[in-house]
Amino acid sequence: MNGGVDIKVSPIKKFEPVFYPDSVTLVGASRDPRKFGYLCLKSLIDSKFPGMIYPINPGSSEILGLKSYPSVKSVPGTVDLAIIVVPANLVPAVLRECGRKGVKGAVIITAGFKEAEGSLGTELQDEARDIAEEANIKIIGPNTFGMYIPHANLNASFTPLLSTIKKGDISFLSQSGGMCHTLSYLAMDDGIGLAKVLSLGNRCNVDFADLLEYLGEDPQTRAIAMYIEGIDNPRRLVAMAKEVTKKKPVVAYKTGKSRAANQAAFSHTGSLAGNYELYSAALRQAGVLMVKDSLELLDTAKALAFCPLAKGDRIAVCSPVAGPGIVSADLGQENGLTIAEFSLPTQEKIETILPPVTFRMNPLDMAFARNSGMWKEILKAIINDPGVDAMLLIFVKQEFFDPIIDEVVELAIDLLKTYHKPIVMGLLSPSKIFVQEKNRLQRNRIPVYQTPERAVKALAALISYSKTLGF
Amino acid sequence: MNGGVDIKVSPIKKFEPVFYPDSVTLVGASRDPRKFGYLCLKSLIDSKFPGMIYPINPGSSEILGLKSYPSVKSVPGTVDLAIIVVPANLVPAVLRECGRKGVKGAVIITAGFKEAEGSLGTELQDEARDIAEEANIKIIGPNTFGMYIPHANLNASFTPLLSTIKKGDISFLSQSGGMCHTLSYLAMDDGIGLAKVLSLGNRCNVDFADLLEYLGEDPQTRAIAMYIEGIDNPRRLVAMAKEVTKKKPVVAYKTGKSRAANQAAFSHTGSLAGNYELYSAALRQAGVLMVKDSLELLDTAKALAFCPLAKGDRIAVCSPVAGPGIVSADLGQENGLTIAEFSLPTQEKIETILPPVTFRMNPLDMAFARNSGMWKEILKAIINDPGVDAMLLIFVKQEFFDPIIDEVVELAIDLLKTYHKPIVMGLLSPSKIFVQEKNRLQRNRIPVYQTPERAVKALAALISYSKTLGF
Repeated sequence: MNGGVDIKVSPIKKFEPVFYPDSVTLVGASRDPRKFGYLCLKSLIDSKFPGMIYPINPGSSEILGLKSYPSVKSVPGTVDLAIIVVPANLVPAVLRECGRKGVKGAVIITAGFKEAEGSLGTELQDEARDIAEEANIKIIGPNTFGMYIPHANLNASFTPLLSTIKKGDISFLSQSGGMCHTLSYLAMDDGIGLAKVLSLGNRCNVDFADLLEYLGEDPQTRAIAMYIEGIDNPRRLVAMAKEVTKKKPVVAYKTGKSRAANQAAFSHTGSLAGNYELYSAALRQAGVLMVKDSLELLDTAKALAFCPLAKGDRIAVCSPVAGPGIVSADLGQENGLTIAEFSLPTQEKIETILPPVTFRMNPLDMAFARNSGMWKEILKAIINDPGVDAMLLIFVKQEFFDPIIDEVVELAIDLLKTYHKPIVMGLLSPSKIFVQEKNRLQRNRIPVYQTPERAVKALAALISYSKTLGF
Repeated sequence: MNGGVDIKVSPIKKFEPVFYPDSVTLVGASRDPRKFGYLCLKSLIDSKFPGMIYPINPGSSEILGLKSYPSVKSVPGTVDLAIIVVPANLVPAVLRECGRKGVKGAVIITAGFKEAEGSLGTELQDEARDIAEEANIKIIGPNTFGMYIPHANLNASFTPLLSTIKKGDISFLSQSGGMCHTLSYLAMDDGIGLAKVLSLGNRCNVDFADLLEYLGEDPQTRAIAMYIEGIDNPRRLVAMAKEVTKKKPVVAYKTGKSRAANQAAFSHTGSLAGNYELYSAALRQAGVLMVKDSLELLDTAKALAFCPLAKGDRIAVCSPVAGPGIVSADLGQENGLTIAEFSLPTQEKIETILPPVTFRMNPLDMAFARNSGMWKEILKAIINDPGVDAMLLIFVKQEFFDPIIDEVVELAIDLLKTYHKPIVMGLLSPSKIFVQEKNRLQRNRIPVYQTPERAVKALAALISYSKTLGF
């Protein structure tokens, strides 16, 4: 009966040794570059994990330049986290040994548990769970690609490439390793960092609700994104989401709607997807933002992590190209936003600056604002307008505006710092151009998107979350 | 009464001198890098336009290394196309001179016509139209960023950067220059070419319907994408779309739904956006695929331009990562696709190759297909299955599969050539990796997308178009 202890232990304490271990062992380390045991070791090394790394392989004395050991037992020091890649039938014995060694967390990459055909896998998973509960070991997996924690320089996955991801403040909780790769590659392309990427796999004794609770308290996580297929205990997840969303934004992507996908979901990580509409409605009710696309999941989480909350739903759209401004106004309204009416002083200000040849209301056409002084006066008047709660600022790679890009970046950052209203940017440009400018904006908490639609949808999600908190 | 002539002239002949001119004049050429007259000349030069270029400026004798002339009249040779950037009030006189010189087409970049506040602009536009009709000049614009025709090495726009876009087979027809930039930059990032990008602006005497008719016959255009704000003559557009979609796929993105956007649309290019639902329904009825996002517009046009038509709606999803496969099945079904049931022989084949630890039905989990021979046998059986009409193939940047990427690319190309069923690929990878492989696939008519959602939505659009043609 050590369950009583758990109640008093904070989620941060509970998972501390799993996510911030001082030492890691890799059970099943290998010199064969085609094996999990090689790739996971390479991931640990590439991510520059600063603690001790103990590769375990009875047949070697050294792997990838590290001294290796025949068993967990034979490791000289203490071990906090074990990454396990040995075949499924050997996992229970390894876990027992880990328990005796005082290991606190295990990432079980091995597949062939509850998700496999036949009953053997389920039996093995039950056995593993019982051992882990007895020994107080938190299991990520089994049947997971692993996890990585940029802030801990810990890549405990079989994909070394992910070691290059920067430290950021979005955490991703996913049932699927494939979706972890998808999201991580999008983040890499976007130049943003991540806080924690956790692939839950079969969720042996650590489920969505546990990690949602943890991330809710995690100081390094400002926004939580989830990819969910099956849910074993939906009530607990919804109840937890209700608590967490009071503190932090949570975006979720739930699949398994179709019959084919539901069957596949069971086979994937051992749980049926269940009733999509029911779960979606319950999560939405709990304050979770529901999306249906991986790009949107990241886009939304980014705006939520970067921006201050909005105090209302009235947005200003300012664009040097009219079409993308019109697109934004349309889609913004469709997504529940109000296209702000500028106050009389703001309107008058704009009309003294811009000639009467383009649309001088909201969505504002700034085609004739050809110097940064005009941008400054106009944008300042707009963001300072009491009828404007947030700004969607569009910029375009176009020779006329090239000379002012630096000043516009500076101005946007300055406006955010001065007025604390969310500013989201649509930067219409080939992704190879304005890389520094984009990074500078994002470092300063202005999320940047390549199309007007992505920008306005992310802003709508931010405002929707602000609304659930009561503006 | 030269209207009678037009009826007999094919659209191809009518627009030949506009899109494939032997000589171009730029009226209002300038040495000042901040002016349209400089940027347009740079665009012409950068795109390596092979014909004669005549800059017109009464005050210069040479601009950007080209001999310049005081007037259109004084140009020694014949002139097919005039790009006009002089102030609006001078445009009628320039058009008259162009008419006398035998110019057949004009790109009027100058703004300040029907879209401007006050009645003067409308009067000027009417005057320009009358002169052009009399002289048989086709006008692109006014109030346009221009157009570019990669196949003619003709960048007749104020954005020199667009000269770098490759020759391709998607044409884009847009009311907005900003949306032309947005789409073009997405295409540049994607490494694909374009056929014609035409920004219509105020549509003085050339409207959507005219260019839709032209593109319907244009041998270099395989798919047509449109961005529409206001429509002056919706009946004519819908009737034309009905004809063109019998021959070629057309995808459209219509905005101006919200009140703010509708007002802005009028101010942008001089037409009210009108009733969104009505227009959308009519266009859909005419066989046009309607989208609501610029990325989706390009994604869809790409699949339509690249792929053969499908003979049914039953898709196979094959993925080495289960999550993205499940996502695809779900979203595919939501978008009207059927997740194919494999035939008994196909199913048996798969079961002899893949171990019983992952989902071996559709969406197929190929996590354990670790060599290219397994991929070959499985994918061949599936695409050859009479119950499968199209394939969504997913590949992931992941060390296990790195060694087989070349063979998978080869295989996909080979399967397309052999079985003529559409193959769409989700390549889950940072965009800097697998660049050559992606380009190779796309050159060989397999469209590639970075997320499973983008891939399956594009495939759904392709199948929807195939269906309107009666499968």
